[in-house]
Amino acid sequence: MINAVGRELPDYLDGFGKIKPFNGAFATLPDMPRQSPKVKRMCPGNHKVLNDLEEVFTKIPIRDGMTLSFHHHFRNGDGVVNMVLATAAKLGLKNLTVALSSVFPVHAPLIDHFKSGVVAALDTNYISGPVAAAISQGLPARPTILRTHGGRARAIECGQLHIDVAFIAAPATDCYGNINGVSGPTACGSLGYAFPDAEYADYVIAVTDHLEEYPLSPISIPQTRVDFVVKTDRIGDPKGIVSGTTQITKDPVQLKIASLAAQAIKASGMITDGLSLQTGAGGASLAVASFVRKMMRETGIVGSFALGGITGYLVQMLEEGLFKKIVDVQGFDLEAVRSLAANPNHLEVGAGFYANPFNSGCTVNQLDCVILGATEIDTNFNVNVVTGSDGIIMGGSGGHSDAAAGAKLTIIVANLLRGRLPILVDQVMTVTTPGETVDVLVTEWGIAVNPLRNDLLERFKTAGLPVKDISELKRIAEDIAGIPQTNRSQGKIVAVVEYRDGTIIDIVRQVPK
Amino acid sequence: MINAVGRELPDYLDGFGKIKPFNGAFATLPDMPRQSPKVKRMCPGNHKVLNDLEEVFTKIPIRDGMTLSFHHHFRNGDGVVNMVLATAAKLGLKNLTVALSSVFPVHAPLIDHFKSGVVAALDTNYISGPVAAAISQGLPARPTILRTHGGRARAIECGQLHIDVAFIAAPATDCYGNINGVSGPTACGSLGYAFPDAEYADYVIAVTDHLEEYPLSPISIPQTRVDFVVKTDRIGDPKGIVSGTTQITKDPVQLKIASLAAQAIKASGMITDGLSLQTGAGGASLAVASFVRKMMRETGIVGSFALGGITGYLVQMLEEGLFKKIVDVQGFDLEAVRSLAANPNHLEVGAGFYANPFNSGCTVNQLDCVILGATEIDTNFNVNVVTGSDGIIMGGSGGHSDAAAGAKLTIIVANLLRGRLPILVDQVMTVTTPGETVDVLVTEWGIAVNPLRNDLLERFKTAGLPVKDISELKRIAEDIAGIPQTNRSQGKIVAVVEYRDGTIIDIVRQVPK
Repeated sequence: MINAVGRELPDYLDGFGKIKPFNGAFATLPDMPRQSPKVKRMCPGNHKVLNDLEEVFTKIPIRDGMTLSFHHHFRNGDGVVNMVLATAAKLGLKNLTVALSSVFPVHAPLIDHFKSGVVAALDTNYISGPVAAAISQGLPARPTILRTHGGRARAIECGQLHIDVAFIAAPATDCYGNINGVSGPTACGSLGYAFPDAEYADYVIAVTDHLEEYPLSPISIPQTRVDFVVKTDRIGDPKGIVSGTTQITKDPVQLKIASLAAQAIKASGMITDGLSLQTGAGGASLAVASFVRKMMRETGIVGSFALGGITGYLVQMLEEGLFKKIVDVQGFDLEAVRSLAANPNHLEVGAGFYANPFNSGCTVNQLDCVILGATEIDTNFNVNVVTGSDGIIMGGSGGHSDAAAGAKLTIIVANLLRGRLPILVDQVMTVTTPGETVDVLVTEWGIAVNPLRNDLLERFKTAGLPVKDISELKRIAEDIAGIPQTNRSQGKIVAVVEYRDGTIIDIVRQVPK
Repeated sequence: MINAVGRELPDYLDGFGKIKPFNGAFATLPDMPRQSPKVKRMCPGNHKVLNDLEEVFTKIPIRDGMTLSFHHHFRNGDGVVNMVLATAAKLGLKNLTVALSSVFPVHAPLIDHFKSGVVAALDTNYISGPVAAAISQGLPARPTILRTHGGRARAIECGQLHIDVAFIAAPATDCYGNINGVSGPTACGSLGYAFPDAEYADYVIAVTDHLEEYPLSPISIPQTRVDFVVKTDRIGDPKGIVSGTTQITKDPVQLKIASLAAQAIKASGMITDGLSLQTGAGGASLAVASFVRKMMRETGIVGSFALGGITGYLVQMLEEGLFKKIVDVQGFDLEAVRSLAANPNHLEVGAGFYANPFNSGCTVNQLDCVILGATEIDTNFNVNVVTGSDGIIMGGSGGHSDAAAGAKLTIIVANLLRGRLPILVDQVMTVTTPGETVDVLVTEWGIAVNPLRNDLLERFKTAGLPVKDISELKRIAEDIAGIPQTNRSQGKIVAVVEYRDGTIIDIVRQVPK
């Protein structure tokens, strides 16, 4: 069958199940009740603190084939996933599913767990590093499910992702399991991606290196959902939170693109009081923020809120009064952690509040503008952030598709050429974010506007911006670099790319070693 | 059938259903999944603000026989219940169930709605004023369900109380339905009793007189659960929050009882660092707090937390450093409101976090000591706070049974004689809180200790406290006032008294006008 972005999909996939094809960004309606975990009780006088992870495994007990979930707020500094899976391996468990909201190079030991059969499947929103390559080579027994941040919250709340045991890396907790991310020696800030896990898992375990007196405050995850508390020496390295650059780019081409993007935001009429903005942590995204900041200062504009993964740069804008609030589902650096702990206008929210399309309203719906990147983009504005042009997994949607769907103005910033390859192609290798939710592509060679947004095209032309048809941009790229060869693998399906509404927007096939 | 406190109950009650008898405070285990409301969605660009309540009724639509829920944080100053039910009456609706966490004299218009058939049943935790009398006279078509605060949270979370539409009186909200109780002209403080309603109702409506810019903060009830926002002129009168006395009693007998209770707490070894305490808002309860405060000051003790309905008196103790935290499910005066808004150590929690017996751990389980009142108490330490000795409803458990079950030390303070009647009897008219969860009765004539707590008896004797057998106290009362006549009504059952675990601990029968 062919889905709404033209991708051929099987009806059924072994190890995954029936495939529901993507049918348009807002075409699929929820038709299920909320997940309803078993009700528990805890008598007065009973205790939650256990000595070690092995005790957790035997107490629950954790059995072959269960789904264990984890959050990624420590990013490349996470210590809990490896610790828990080492325990599982030691106890001889097999066939586990790991539902980890994002995977980083630090999680390389997963590869051995795939090989030994301890872990049979991965359910995640983003993968970087050696685990991504291992999946592309077909290592896990079952296909990986690649979700979006909002889609993961939806899958948990709506029952498509059933978690047997959620392990929460808990920077601070008390004896009764209240958790926050802002206290303790390994504070990581917002714990937003763990909120759905804590709410709907059958069992919830706080793994901590910092116990405070009862009752802990603030409380991000409540005692009412936490079954056991395990104290360990160290749950992670907060320095690892800062993955990659969180500094404004110094690359002149990227600065040019960022400047153009900021002008596009201005031309769209959004530099007004109440502006809300999401930027990523990448250097180009931050450069856009810096140009917008300048415009806001010059015109005395006070924005409403900054959203998403939060950096020190956005914290500065909050503290300067350029935004009234920060809505934080994830901290990208230690400044974001500090601000969340201290500033009542810096709000911690869960993944469902951030981006779940199936509730009574998530925050991306309130977003004016989002700046996003792309590995590839096609002439229908479909974006790939899952695979490289070689077909090997190197990322994932994270909040990409969510913010694109929600924001009034979705801008993709990208160098028209990456290395010697055009990023603008006829068909992206893997559709992640559907073109109907992308409004504008900004490159160093000009700006392309989605034909669905002729209102923007007129505004950009009036503002004198270098607007070009997207086909023309593609021709420019091909004139410089030639037409890239596309080598579509015919190997087995190693991953499904799930759109935020639970439909399948694309698949990823095995690539030979 | 006869339940574990000796009460005869029918197996089945018309308008209520099958009756599960109370079987002991911790004998009944949960055997159900959590309630799973239908999943909804909200597309970008859709709005939630409606013009008036009638629009809400037609938009949902609200139909005959539905259950509408409300919180009682405005207590006797509430304006929303009457407003919504007047709309229902105007639109000709019939046979509604009103699930209002507590009922006050201001809700007297309910009586007309009972008469006209607009409202057929009431589900609540506490009733004072004319509505209580009307129920005792058998006015509503179906029996009233009297729950506890924790039991109501349980009933909602576990699916025994299904709410079609929750109306949240919202002191502050934004256009997307985020709600708090600390901003705006009618701030009422904690919204804890509305948390379960907002989480599990099919539809949630914020009724507000104060809209703030998006995103509102702090957020007590999130946009993800709120479907519509209705702006009205005034949702209530915050002055009505202060119901009855929240001042320390000046009555010498009550002061004597309070002093004895404080000495009992001390003798039980609880005046140590980390003490946690719940007192009500009544003058006698506050007097106990004042004696405890003095002991804490004298010995330099720093307590852990104060819990429950919060008064300015407890706020003073927090600000003085005698408690590290306040855990607030309900504000009893405007000082509590002020403190919750300003003090990060003053925590707002939901009814489930406070006292739901069926989750992974509620806060009453962490309580050292609770001071509670009684209308009657019997020689098995069973307490009645539902009916007067005439059998007419005049209260309800509220958090009484919850705190009694959770706390390490549950003290009932009561004058041995109320008016000319002994409060100590062979059998209370209506069992509300089972004797097995009550440790100590303190009266002006001495202290009785539950035989289950011989450890306490020894400590009290060692401390030289005036300990008496409970039968001896009863004899003293009867020597003074005679043996009270008990006139058990044989009328129809007008209310069931549900214990916090969902079993029925007693029933209330109709009393002639």
